[in-house]
Amino acid sequence: MTIQRDILITEVALRDGSHAIAHQYTVDQVLRVAKALGEAGVPYIEVSHGDGLGGSSLQYGLSLTDELKLIEAAVSVSGDSKVAVLVLPGIGTIEDMKEAIKLGAKMARIATHVTEADVSAQHISKAKDMGLETVGFLMMSHMAPVDKLVEQAKLMESYGADTVYMVDSAGALLPHEVRERTRALRDHLGVNVGFHGHNNLSLAMANTLAAIEEGAVRIDGSIRCLGAGAGNTQTEVLVAVLERMGIQTGIDLYKIMDTAEEVVAPILQVPQEITRDNLVLGYAGVYSSFMLHAQRAAKKFGIDSRDILIELGKLKVVGGQEDMIIDVASEMAKARN
Amino acid sequence: MTIQRDILITEVALRDGSHAIAHQYTVDQVLRVAKALGEAGVPYIEVSHGDGLGGSSLQYGLSLTDELKLIEAAVSVSGDSKVAVLVLPGIGTIEDMKEAIKLGAKMARIATHVTEADVSAQHISKAKDMGLETVGFLMMSHMAPVDKLVEQAKLMESYGADTVYMVDSAGALLPHEVRERTRALRDHLGVNVGFHGHNNLSLAMANTLAAIEEGAVRIDGSIRCLGAGAGNTQTEVLVAVLERMGIQTGIDLYKIMDTAEEVVAPILQVPQEITRDNLVLGYAGVYSSFMLHAQRAAKKFGIDSRDILIELGKLKVVGGQEDMIIDVASEMAKARN
Repeated sequence: MTIQRDILITEVALRDGSHAIAHQYTVDQVLRVAKALGEAGVPYIEVSHGDGLGGSSLQYGLSLTDELKLIEAAVSVSGDSKVAVLVLPGIGTIEDMKEAIKLGAKMARIATHVTEADVSAQHISKAKDMGLETVGFLMMSHMAPVDKLVEQAKLMESYGADTVYMVDSAGALLPHEVRERTRALRDHLGVNVGFHGHNNLSLAMANTLAAIEEGAVRIDGSIRCLGAGAGNTQTEVLVAVLERMGIQTGIDLYKIMDTAEEVVAPILQVPQEITRDNLVLGYAGVYSSFMLHAQRAAKKFGIDSRDILIELGKLKVVGGQEDMIIDVASEMAKARN
Repeated sequence: MTIQRDILITEVALRDGSHAIAHQYTVDQVLRVAKALGEAGVPYIEVSHGDGLGGSSLQYGLSLTDELKLIEAAVSVSGDSKVAVLVLPGIGTIEDMKEAIKLGAKMARIATHVTEADVSAQHISKAKDMGLETVGFLMMSHMAPVDKLVEQAKLMESYGADTVYMVDSAGALLPHEVRERTRALRDHLGVNVGFHGHNNLSLAMANTLAAIEEGAVRIDGSIRCLGAGAGNTQTEVLVAVLERMGIQTGIDLYKIMDTAEEVVAPILQVPQEITRDNLVLGYAGVYSSFMLHAQRAAKKFGIDSRDILIELGKLKVVGGQEDMIIDVASEMAKARN
């Protein structure tokens, strides 16, 4: 029996959701979640450290369990579902991908900052050579204008990506922006367009529907909203909404609901609400790693950390430029005196 | 100084949010929340039992504190913000409204099922006579086709309502449905159109933006998402999103964020997540009060309570018809044997 799927969903709770539980997944938890996701008919299940293969580190957060053990566990129980891995060039290596393939991973998603697609060239072409289905994953997509986004997506396509995702890492995009960007990608790419949303502005579902309406056919969801920041588009809710709209995901609605409630919810240590910090990150459109730096600088200079974060967003400061946070705060404090 | 407001927001955490905390508000909590909302510049603050004036009862849930005491407290600290009350004819009386006016309430929102606007005639006209700003509040709006919704809204307008709200009580509407309905209301009414959303399908923000784009100028929000089911459009997030869109609410973003985090979040006993039950209610489009009945019937007849709820939604069963739940379950069980 062929399952009808208009949209292919990748479940990211075992990767992006790793952020939400400080990378503390156990083998037992992954076995239970992946088995249930497989039985519900989820086509792709991403399993990696929150920052991709090789992400376990003091800088990005140490994993409780070696991610290769988690990938192996997921593959062993996920049935027809394919296990995907995330790879950030500079963190995850080609060797890491080879290990993941040995354990049964079938898809690699190669992620870069939206303006740095060129660093994905080798990873994408190697992943293809090794027989993986390959996705280019353009993070912080709100930081590039539409033409730049298209240019970078075309680079990833040229390296061999089967799909290119617009990734709203900070949950900063508004629905009309997603619409315009998806349409541009759809117009200029020969490969599939995907969308990965975050809920910091309570717009993950709205943005996902906008992307689908404009032709995105690969969508990321996170069961029970388990993801960085305010979490992702909530998978079981997305399945319900798409069913109401007559769009087939091939996922069993009752099973995915039961998995969320009975298997995943008990794993969550802190509920996935839109807190002040998450909201500020989405409103400013900056990296979550800036929050602590901005709060420290705010204290030092006697200003509001939100003003700093919003200014960093306007200046389009990227990861690695954390030094600028003190400079920005210092300038702001001076300007006020 | 006149505050620029393109959209007038009514904050419902002290009314709809009462459901989320089992009607256990204290005077002290209401004093702190209303004072902070006033200082943030929220134009209207609704204060009542979750089911409106007079709602405190065994049937609807007993309030910890007499709602008149809560209204009095809110009025005493809310500054330029106006205090609104909800009234469901059949539960709240004209006498209740008189009491609320004595305590300083300035707006009455008269709520009926979407097909029963006629029962609001006396309440709306009396509220107007007594000098209140008056809102007609059409609950479970997804249950009526567009022309019926317009007809009922026009009835409320004819009784004297200054604004008519489309209320998505079950969080069941999809953005394109909100768009079509708002446009129809806008085309056929001379008075303001309002929208009140719930987040059971993770679409409260999407639906709110759709309503605003089609001309709704009164919008309900609930700070920290405090409302029935999965909660409402989250006020502080809405203010942030509208700011990003260049739409003025007149509400201070930082103050409303701080109120959410520091004053309201500590009141919440259970986080406002989209749980399985909330999702089912939104997907089926039925009253939350049906859940327990359906679960009991499901157990009795050995079927899934979700199948019963979805069937009740299709049959457009309304409150007061709870007897039908057993009949529906029994029929379904028979059909399977």
